[in-house]
Amino acid sequence: MLLQQGISGSNGIAIARAFLYQEQEIIIDTTPITPDKINNEIIKLSQAGEKAKEQISHLRDKALAEAGEEQAKIFEAHLTMLSDPALWGEMGALIKSEHITAGYAVKQVVDRFVAVFRSMDDEYMKERAADIADIGGRLLRNVLGITAKGLDYLDSEVIIIAHDLTPSDTMALNRDYAKGFAVNVGGRTSHAAIMARTLEIPAVLGLKDITGKVKDGELVILDGITGAVIVSPTPELLTEYKEKQRQYYAEQAELKKVIPLPAVTTDGRRVEIAANIGTPRDIDAVIATNGDGVGLYRSEFLYMDKDCFPSEEEQFAAYRIVAQKLSGKPVIIRTLDIGGDKELKCFPMPPEMNPFLGWRAIRLCLAEKAMFMTQLRAILRASAYGNIMIMYPMISGLTEVRQANAVLAEAKEQLRSERVPFNENIKVGIMVEIPSTAVIADLIAPEVDFFSIGTNDLCQYTLAVDRMNEKISYLYQPLHPAILRLIKRVIDASHQYGKFTGMCGELAGDPLAAIILLGLGLDEFSMSASSMPRIKKIIRSVAYEQAKAIATPALDMATPQQVAAYAAGVLKDWGLS
Amino acid sequence: MLLQQGISGSNGIAIARAFLYQEQEIIIDTTPITPDKINNEIIKLSQAGEKAKEQISHLRDKALAEAGEEQAKIFEAHLTMLSDPALWGEMGALIKSEHITAGYAVKQVVDRFVAVFRSMDDEYMKERAADIADIGGRLLRNVLGITAKGLDYLDSEVIIIAHDLTPSDTMALNRDYAKGFAVNVGGRTSHAAIMARTLEIPAVLGLKDITGKVKDGELVILDGITGAVIVSPTPELLTEYKEKQRQYYAEQAELKKVIPLPAVTTDGRRVEIAANIGTPRDIDAVIATNGDGVGLYRSEFLYMDKDCFPSEEEQFAAYRIVAQKLSGKPVIIRTLDIGGDKELKCFPMPPEMNPFLGWRAIRLCLAEKAMFMTQLRAILRASAYGNIMIMYPMISGLTEVRQANAVLAEAKEQLRSERVPFNENIKVGIMVEIPSTAVIADLIAPEVDFFSIGTNDLCQYTLAVDRMNEKISYLYQPLHPAILRLIKRVIDASHQYGKFTGMCGELAGDPLAAIILLGLGLDEFSMSASSMPRIKKIIRSVAYEQAKAIATPALDMATPQQVAAYAAGVLKDWGLS
Repeated sequence: MLLQQGISGSNGIAIARAFLYQEQEIIIDTTPITPDKINNEIIKLSQAGEKAKEQISHLRDKALAEAGEEQAKIFEAHLTMLSDPALWGEMGALIKSEHITAGYAVKQVVDRFVAVFRSMDDEYMKERAADIADIGGRLLRNVLGITAKGLDYLDSEVIIIAHDLTPSDTMALNRDYAKGFAVNVGGRTSHAAIMARTLEIPAVLGLKDITGKVKDGELVILDGITGAVIVSPTPELLTEYKEKQRQYYAEQAELKKVIPLPAVTTDGRRVEIAANIGTPRDIDAVIATNGDGVGLYRSEFLYMDKDCFPSEEEQFAAYRIVAQKLSGKPVIIRTLDIGGDKELKCFPMPPEMNPFLGWRAIRLCLAEKAMFMTQLRAILRASAYGNIMIMYPMISGLTEVRQANAVLAEAKEQLRSERVPFNENIKVGIMVEIPSTAVIADLIAPEVDFFSIGTNDLCQYTLAVDRMNEKISYLYQPLHPAILRLIKRVIDASHQYGKFTGMCGELAGDPLAAIILLGLGLDEFSMSASSMPRIKKIIRSVAYEQAKAIATPALDMATPQQVAAYAAGVLKDWGLS
Repeated sequence: MLLQQGISGSNGIAIARAFLYQEQEIIIDTTPITPDKINNEIIKLSQAGEKAKEQISHLRDKALAEAGEEQAKIFEAHLTMLSDPALWGEMGALIKSEHITAGYAVKQVVDRFVAVFRSMDDEYMKERAADIADIGGRLLRNVLGITAKGLDYLDSEVIIIAHDLTPSDTMALNRDYAKGFAVNVGGRTSHAAIMARTLEIPAVLGLKDITGKVKDGELVILDGITGAVIVSPTPELLTEYKEKQRQYYAEQAELKKVIPLPAVTTDGRRVEIAANIGTPRDIDAVIATNGDGVGLYRSEFLYMDKDCFPSEEEQFAAYRIVAQKLSGKPVIIRTLDIGGDKELKCFPMPPEMNPFLGWRAIRLCLAEKAMFMTQLRAILRASAYGNIMIMYPMISGLTEVRQANAVLAEAKEQLRSERVPFNENIKVGIMVEIPSTAVIADLIAPEVDFFSIGTNDLCQYTLAVDRMNEKISYLYQPLHPAILRLIKRVIDASHQYGKFTGMCGELAGDPLAAIILLGLGLDEFSMSASSMPRIKKIIRSVAYEQAKAIATPALDMATPQQVAAYAAGVLKDWGLS
C-alpha cells in the first residue's frame, strides 16, 4: 500500500483501477535535410496545421455541447493561437534557414514559447504554457503522422494517472469510464481541476511523481476531499473507503432534495440563497440548483482577455441574458472591480507597492469616467429586462457613493433623453469590504438600497493580512470576533433604515458560519452554486430565534479559534457537520 | 518679481540676499598618460584619499559637536565608503590598465556608482547617490589640488540657492549667516531638509531650476511653511512678508512659553504630551521641550544599517540611557517593527506582493524567537533603571498578545534565575493599528496595561489605502468618522478596565485633531518633540468638558471633509489656528 498526498482539485471519492496515461515518446529527426526537401517539409507543416485546426474545431464543438461555453473557449483560444502568422512564419523560416525537418522546427519554436510562459511568475501565464504544449504536441503528432493513443479508448471504469492532462486530453476522454484524475502537476485552478469539477468527478493534483509510483491496472482510492491517493489499499482500508464513499454520495443525494425547497427557517424566516457568477454561462448552474438570484455578478470577467474594453452592446447583452433567464429574481451586478490582484489586458495598470491598498475598483472607475459610464448605461438598459441591481465595490465612505451615483444619474439622464427604456427605480447598493464602511454603515445606510459584505477583502483589511502570503495566512480568520462584530454592525444599520444586507464573500458559503450569520440577521447568502444546497439545508434545520441565541455569544469570544470551535460544536449538536 | 513653488523642507520665513552656490566646473585631463607616469597617479590617488579621510573626520567631529549624532553618522558612513578596498582597487586597476589620470579614474568609477544608485526605484537609495557624489567630488578636488569655495566663506546674512546641498556642504557652512536654503532637487526627507530642521532655518526643495532663475545678490523671500520662493519681491509683498515673519516668530516665542507648564485643561484634566523617538540621541530634544515621557521608542533604528542584529548589551545600553535621562518619566519601547516598508540590512526579507499586509513586526518576532528574546531581555534589564514599558506592534488579536507575553515570561524567568535585576511589574501594552484590534479592544483590555493607537497604519488598513500611492492618497483621511469611532472605542475600552490609551501616530501631533482627541478621552499624545508645544498650548486653552462636547458630533458626521471643516472651525473659534 502506498499513500500519496496531493492537492484537492475536485471533491468526491473514486475507487477503481489505474489507467496510466503517458504521452508516447516522440522521436524527432534532427539531421539536416537537403535543400530540395525544404519545400516538402513546408507543405507537411502546413497540412499538419490544417489538420490540427480541424481536430480542435471538433473538440470545441464537443466541449460546447457537453461541457459548456467556458470549456469551449479554451479550444477557441487554441484556434486563435494556431492562426497566428508569426508562429508559421517562424517555423517556416527555421526550416528554410537551418535546413531542418518540419518536426524539428515545430519542436524548437514550441519549446521556446513554452519555456517563456513557464518562466513567468504568474499562475495564469504558467497555465498558458500548458495550452501551448498541448497545441505543439498535436502539431508534432500530425507532422509525424502519429495517432494519439487518446483517453477516448477507455473501455472500463478507471482512475486516470498522468503527468498532466491537457484541455485536449480531458475533452477527448470517454466520460462513462473516467472516474477521476490524479496528476503530477498543477493545483486547484489548473485546467484539469476545473474540468473535474465540471464533470463532478474527484481529482487530486500536484502529486509530483504519481506516474512513477502507480502501475497500470493497480487498484487506487482517490479521495478528492482530502487530496489523498492510496495505491493498492489494504482490505480494511478499502472497506473503510467504500463506506466513506457511500456516505459522501448519500449526503450529496440528501442535499439534492433541498434544491426545490425555499431557504426558510423552522420558525418561518425566509432568507435568500443566491449565487456568485462570472459569466452568463454560469447562470445555468444557478437555475439547476434553484438559486434565489444572483448576489454577485462579477462583471470584470467580461473585460478579461480582451484587447479593448467590451462595448456597451456587448455588456448589455451579457447582463440582459442573465436577467431574462432568472425571470424576475434579483441579479446584483457589481461594477468593474479590477486592480489589486486582478489585471486587464486592455487596461495596463502601473505597478504598485501594495496593490491591495491601491488604485482599484470604484477608485479606478471614478477616475475613468467614460469606461464607467459605458458600463452603467449597459446595466441600466439591461434593467428593463429583469430585476437588476447595481453594486459599487471598494467603497470606503459616503463621498464615493455620492460620486458614483452622480455618474449613474447622468447615465439615466442620457438614456431618458434617448428614450431608451430602463428601470427608473433600479436599486443601488455597495460592497462592504473596507473596514471604514462597516464602522460607519449607519451613516451610509440612508443613501443606499442594500449592503453586500465581501468577507474576503473585509477580512484582509480588518486583520491586515494578505491571505495569499503563506507566511501569515494563518492570521486570515473570517471567524475573528472583530469580523463578526463588523458584520453585525452592517446588518443592524441596514435594518434600522429598512434596507437589506447580503454577503458575497466566501464566508457566506461556509457551513461553519451559516447559523451564526443567520442569527446575526443576514438577509441574503451569496456563494458558488455548488455550495447552495448545503447552506440551505442548514438554514432549513434551525429556528431564527435559536440562531440568534447561538450567534450572540460568538461576538464576545476572545479569539477566532474559540469561535471556530464553538461553531463546529453547534453544527455537531445539530447533526449538521 | 518671480514666484517659484517648491516643497517645504523646514518651516520658517527668511528674507535675505541670494548666495548662489555653484560647484566650480572641474576640468579633467582625459588624455592617456605614459606608462612611467602610472605610479605617480597611483600615489596622487592615495594621497587624495588620505586627505579626504582627514577632511571628513573633521566634519564628523564638527557635526557631533554642533548638530548631533544623526548628522555625524552620515560622515561616519562616508568614511566607511572611503575605506572600501574594492573602490581603490577598481580605480587603481583603471589607471594601470587604461593608462589614464587619477582624476579620470575617480570620475569614471564614481559616475558609475552614482548612476547605479540613482537608477534604483527607492528614495533611500537615490539619496545614497548624493552621498557618493559628495565623496567623489571631494576626492576629485583633492586629486586636482582644487580648494572648494565652500559655504564657510559666507560673511553676511544670505539665503543659499543651490542645485543640491551635500552633507559636506551643510556641515561646512557658517551658521551665523545662512538664513535658509532653496535647492533644485530633493524633498522633505532629503539631507538638506533634515539639516535645515535641525538648524531651525527654513528650507524649500524640489524647485527644479531655482539656480537658473536667481542671480547672486538678488533679494529673496523664502517661505518654508508654504514652499514658496519669491525673487525680487514688490515693496508691498516685502512688507506683507515681514509682517508674516514677525507673526511666525512671535508665535514660536509664544509657544516656547508653554514648555515649562503642564499639559492640563482649564478644568484640570492632565494629559501627557510625550515624544516619538528613534535613537538615544533624540532624547535631548524631548528634555529641552519638557516632554512628559516617550510614548514611542522606535527600537528598529538600533537594528538599521547593521550587518548583524544588535547584541543584548548594545540594546540594553540604548534603552537604559533613555530611561535614565528621563529620570522616572515613562518610556514606552516598541518591540522590533520591521517589514512593510522598513527593511533591515541584517535581516533580508522575502519580497511580498502586499508588504503592508505581510510578514512584519510582532508576526516576525514571534517567528524569530531568539531575536525577540534578546530584545525583551535587553528591555527588561533596562527597566531596572527607569520607568520603561513594553509595547507590541501589529497586534491583530488576543492570541498574539498571549504568545508575546509567553516569551516575555520566559525572559523574566531567565533573568530571575540569573539574578539580574528588572522591574517585575513592568507595564505591557500594544499598538492599536490593525482595525480588528480596535473593534475588539474591550476583549483585549483586561490582558494589557495600555493601548497606543498608531493612526498611520490604522488609517491605511481601515480605509484600505497605501498613503504612499499617490493615485489614491487623497483617500487617506485620518479624520474619517470611522477612524474617530475606532479611536473612541479603544479609549472607552481601556477606561472601562482602568487602563490608559495613548496615540503615537501622526494624528497625535496634528493641531486640527487635538481638541477632538482630548474630548474623546485620549490620555497621552505622543509626537515629534517639535510639535509638542503647539499641542500643549491647545490643550491648555480648553476645558475637558468643552472638548467632549466638541468631539461628540464629529463621530456622526458623514464625511472626513465635513469633520476637517468642523475641526478647523473649532480651532478658529478658539483663536488657536
